[in-house]
Amino acid sequence: MDRRSFIAKAGVLGVGAASAALAAPAVAQGNITWRMVTTWPKNFPGLGVGAQRLADRITAASGGRLTVQVYSAGELVPPLQSLDAVIDGTAEMSHGAAYYWQNKSPALSFFTGVPYGMTTPELTAWVRFLGGQEIWDEIYDQFGVKGFLSGNTGTQTGGWFRKELNSVDDIKGVRFRTPGLGGRVWEKLGATVTNLAAGEIFQALQSGTLDAAEFVGPYNDLALGFYQVAKNYYMPSFVESGLATELAVDKKKYLDLPDDLQAIIRDVSQAEYDQVSADFIANDPRALKTLINDHGVIVRNFPDDIMDAGATASVEVVEELRNSDDPLVKKTTESFIEALNLVRERTEKIDSPYVRAREKYLRY
Amino acid sequence: MDRRSFIAKAGVLGVGAASAALAAPAVAQGNITWRMVTTWPKNFPGLGVGAQRLADRITAASGGRLTVQVYSAGELVPPLQSLDAVIDGTAEMSHGAAYYWQNKSPALSFFTGVPYGMTTPELTAWVRFLGGQEIWDEIYDQFGVKGFLSGNTGTQTGGWFRKELNSVDDIKGVRFRTPGLGGRVWEKLGATVTNLAAGEIFQALQSGTLDAAEFVGPYNDLALGFYQVAKNYYMPSFVESGLATELAVDKKKYLDLPDDLQAIIRDVSQAEYDQVSADFIANDPRALKTLINDHGVIVRNFPDDIMDAGATASVEVVEELRNSDDPLVKKTTESFIEALNLVRERTEKIDSPYVRAREKYLRY
Repeated sequence: MDRRSFIAKAGVLGVGAASAALAAPAVAQGNITWRMVTTWPKNFPGLGVGAQRLADRITAASGGRLTVQVYSAGELVPPLQSLDAVIDGTAEMSHGAAYYWQNKSPALSFFTGVPYGMTTPELTAWVRFLGGQEIWDEIYDQFGVKGFLSGNTGTQTGGWFRKELNSVDDIKGVRFRTPGLGGRVWEKLGATVTNLAAGEIFQALQSGTLDAAEFVGPYNDLALGFYQVAKNYYMPSFVESGLATELAVDKKKYLDLPDDLQAIIRDVSQAEYDQVSADFIANDPRALKTLINDHGVIVRNFPDDIMDAGATASVEVVEELRNSDDPLVKKTTESFIEALNLVRERTEKIDSPYVRAREKYLRY
Repeated sequence: MDRRSFIAKAGVLGVGAASAALAAPAVAQGNITWRMVTTWPKNFPGLGVGAQRLADRITAASGGRLTVQVYSAGELVPPLQSLDAVIDGTAEMSHGAAYYWQNKSPALSFFTGVPYGMTTPELTAWVRFLGGQEIWDEIYDQFGVKGFLSGNTGTQTGGWFRKELNSVDDIKGVRFRTPGLGGRVWEKLGATVTNLAAGEIFQALQSGTLDAAEFVGPYNDLALGFYQVAKNYYMPSFVESGLATELAVDKKKYLDLPDDLQAIIRDVSQAEYDQVSADFIANDPRALKTLINDHGVIVRNFPDDIMDAGATASVEVVEELRNSDDPLVKKTTESFIEALNLVRERTEKIDSPYVRAREKYLRY
């Protein structure tokens, strides 16, 4: 997708044109139609495509008994009102990221990803086998919804910088686009952090309003054209070691479904966690090749002292959540830290040494 | 599970008691019952449990319209005849690993894992987005079956050694239990390789018939009790960077199913690829803690020259497949190498540097 048409579509992320009144969900011949609102622009690589595919797979696996109609960002409600649309009954499903709803509970960040957090496989281990889903259910029960993991971008890239970074001192005063808890980490490192919608970043970089910006990774970033104005592409992101997407469903309506349709929603969401992850793993390196070979992008690693200071700042941000007055936020943080400390043992003793050795020794 | 009861169950892996004639698949009130044979003992951690759960999830998502009845290793046919049981119509489904059927086509190894091969997320990227599934279909079409990824152990451990290894020279003459292509790599490094069924390894280690053995990883190895006779636990395995399991289905019967049931089989298999992987990621480190803290196991990394020589030998083994006279084996190998060379770019530039930095700098 070229930059202009992508931005035209992505632009709705910041705008959100609620469409006119729509008919109530259809129930004909025992078939149900559900509305899925999403936080992603239509055909947004990886994530918007994943939302549509998830809907289509539920429709197919249910033989049309549960037909899911997708409304991309802004088509039915503004993107950042997707969860509210489920809560107020405007839609039955929302496809987005749990950390967009931090204002409802800061604990929700953990189900998308927190700075210096879990990788894609680690997060699924926590949610499915180490108590994560149960806590997530407890949080969402307050709002009458149920969340399912539905995709993951994998570890993201660190950002596009006009100037090379030689040490943590170079971050001071850099005007950097990066949202959420990751933004707070970068502020602690000295950056001046702003958040902008996807469609506004390029312009701000070009005009000099921004010195640097991060978005997702090569697959998404290529389409946004950042390489035209900032050549230093830093990796990895230490504040987004993964971004998990969620499918959030009206819990009462979900429990009113027959058991087989409930199972289909669960199964397809989990299948899509794998499918979306695979999409990024396959397509990020293709986009990275294009960025390097066709657009002269320079891939750089952050200096060690930035990675070190980033870890310290990330622990501070997460420890604030552990000290929350809200017992559920505290409980979520503790469960997350305990699970991370467990699963990293395997990652560090088995997975990581393998990948390092392969990098060093294997050549075809 | 304690070692004795586990071995009693695992013992069938080498034996295989075909049970008496069974009734033909039931078709009542539009419901179908399918038989799934597996290569795993009942309740085998991770994999046998995964086969049963996959069957149950298909039954649940189909509302019982497709009920899957599981026959563990040896219950209906010997474990290593599972795929043949599907081909000859004794069963409709087989849950196992594609590399068990190397005698049908050496190309099938790639869909389980080859030495110095892909990680769990990389394999799913190849199969789903980089042409792997299409080639797999082409291979299995010769036998009238269709394969789906259905789980992954993740990167395994390298093995249990009585003596410490200080260099590649120490491998010479070591009597080592390790099967398949990995065994051929270890032979090239100088080991004397044998294969033994799970239930026979402990005895052989204890009696001194074996000097070393590898099986899967902490979660499975703990149950087999190797720590009692060999304290040096080497990691990672460079010959099994992942072991993907498959669900193989009678293709004609699969295509005769209504579209929704076909979709359910696909979706549940993919969900289980994630679920089984998560099981190992959550439970391997728990078992590893027990091995270290309660059983005095010493975790060691292979010396660099072994990792280096292992890569050279692995390339030789895979290049032999690339030079095969069978055009489909050649094509599979080329697709695999091309995909590996692509996806490793992301793994090495983004994922691996993140995990290394986290290991170095993050402490809770």
